[in-house]
Amino acid sequence: MKVERIAVSLEPELLKKFEGKIKQRAYWNRSKAVSDVLREWISRDAWEVGKGEMVATISILYNHHMHDALDRITDLQHEFGKGVLASMHIHLSHDDCLEVIAVKGSSQKIRKISDGLSSVRGVKHCKLAVIR
Amino acid sequence: MKVERIAVSLEPELLKKFEGKIKQRAYWNRSKAVSDVLREWISRDAWEVGKGEMVATISILYNHHMHDALDRITDLQHEFGKGVLASMHIHLSHDDCLEVIAVKGSSQKIRKISDGLSSVRGVKHCKLAVIR
Amino acid sequence: MKVERIAVSLEPELLKKFEGKIKQRAYWNRSKAVSDVLREWISRDAWEVGKGEMVATISILYNHHMHDALDRITDLQHEFGKGVLASMHIHLSHDDCLEVIAVKGSSQKIRKISDGLSSVRGVKHCKLAVIR
Amino acid sequence: MKVERIAVSLEPELLKKFEGKIKQRAYWNRSKAVSDVLREWISRDAWEVGKGEMVATISILYNHHMHDALDRITDLQHEFGKGVLASMHIHLSHDDCLEVIAVKGSSQKIRKISDGLSSVRGVKHCKLAVIR
Repeated sequence: MKVERIAVSLEPELLKKFEGKIKQRAYWNRSKAVSDVLREWISRDAWEVGKGEMVATISILYNHHMHDALDRITDLQHEFGKGVLASMHIHLSHDDCLEVIAVKGSSQKIRKISDGLSSVRGVKHCKLAVIR
Repeated sequence: MKVERIAVSLEPELLKKFEGKIKQRAYWNRSKAVSDVLREWISRDAWEVGKGEMVATISILYNHHMHDALDRITDLQHEFGKGVLASMHIHLSHDDCLEVIAVKGSSQKIRKISDGLSSVRGVKHCKLAVIR
Repeated sequence: MKVERIAVSLEPELLKKFEGKIKQRAYWNRSKAVSDVLREWISRDAWEVGKGEMVATISILYNHHMHDALDRITDLQHEFGKGVLASMHIHLSHDDCLEVIAVKGSSQKIRKISDGLSSVRGVKHCKLAVIR
Repeated sequence: MKVERIAVSLEPELLKKFEGKIKQRAYWNRSKAVSDVLREWISRDAWEVGKGEMVATISILYNHHMHDALDRITDLQHEFGKGVLASMHIHLSHDDCLEVIAVKGSSQKIRKISDGLSSVRGVKHCKLAVIR
């Protein structure tokens, strides 16, 4: 993979802490760590500003005995159309299911489907994780 | 489903905003909304305090052309053993894959696998979402 | 203070956890706890949607030996005009100062001054806390 | 100020986005931006792991007409002793006051005073911002 090298000036104290962190987290190297924190910073900003296409996962925990919950969750995904990349379903317990839905789209659209899912009767937890 | 009823006193201004929010988000009813925010509050606290078994999803975005990335990601999941409930794999583009891993365990253990995954060479984004 | 009473239905398991949390946190009563989590939910949403006047605090940690840092920080506050409610200055160490600025305004405006402050040379940390 | 220079390799696409972000945010230079995101990463981790002395601000919004609120808030600050660096008080409206308290200490201690303040009768919002 092609890379470009830049020189960065850090205060000695910060560099020392950074080296300690990398070691503790068993990071591949400094460039990987810097790249990761920069990517996170850029994607966090992009989400807040609402520009560009984002990728996110929505995790919902719901009681599948609740009448209509599964139907409504499936309907909402279909309404979102091509924005839904894939979903995964896990049986957590006798009552509770975890459904994880990977989505892409504008932050407005992703927020809308996430809000929609969280308000479905039977859904107990709804967590949105913006990936990039 | 069996429920218990409690009486809650709210300032008129807060009640008005709450009613507005419920309407705007098309929430089933007030009890569902109150239950959801309470559940989120309880699980957030549980995570920070580090008590009990949590359920979370870890979403990683990585370049699958990067030598060893997939192997290392798979190895880490196997090391975590029964803590991994399931995982889902999505081809985002020619280079990028999104892998979503549903896990359960103590917050310490979940943080550890999440940190491990984020430091794998080739992993660009790693997002942890605590569900409950 | 005038209050309005509403009845809320909670699942027994959630009610039990809620009661435990209230006790552990030494909360005044259930209504206070429910009010607080509802207020937080409403203000978080308001911030993300970008509607209405928000109140926030911006905490910056900076090296006051850095040429111009204080001037630039003060200039930015003056540019923000009436949006700045007050500020507090704390000498943390020989080098580092903590300045906390209470602001009000739209989420866009608050984000703008926060971004401006974080990019000033000498500012090491900039943290925005949305209050309501 | 003495600095140390390190070389960092970034993918061309990431470097391009990073340059765009710096320009948009009017950042002093690349090293400042990299330093800031690294500092935030390090302090976030330190908070979660609960090691070392942290600096934080706690912002509370409360109704000062509520009997005892101010007394209780002041008591809690005194109990925290030297952990409280300074506080600032702002009259937001006829009813509401904003109090911002700068604190230092372990994450456990800071969380404890923050939890204590949030449970005081009359306190409507309590927001903890970890600075470093």
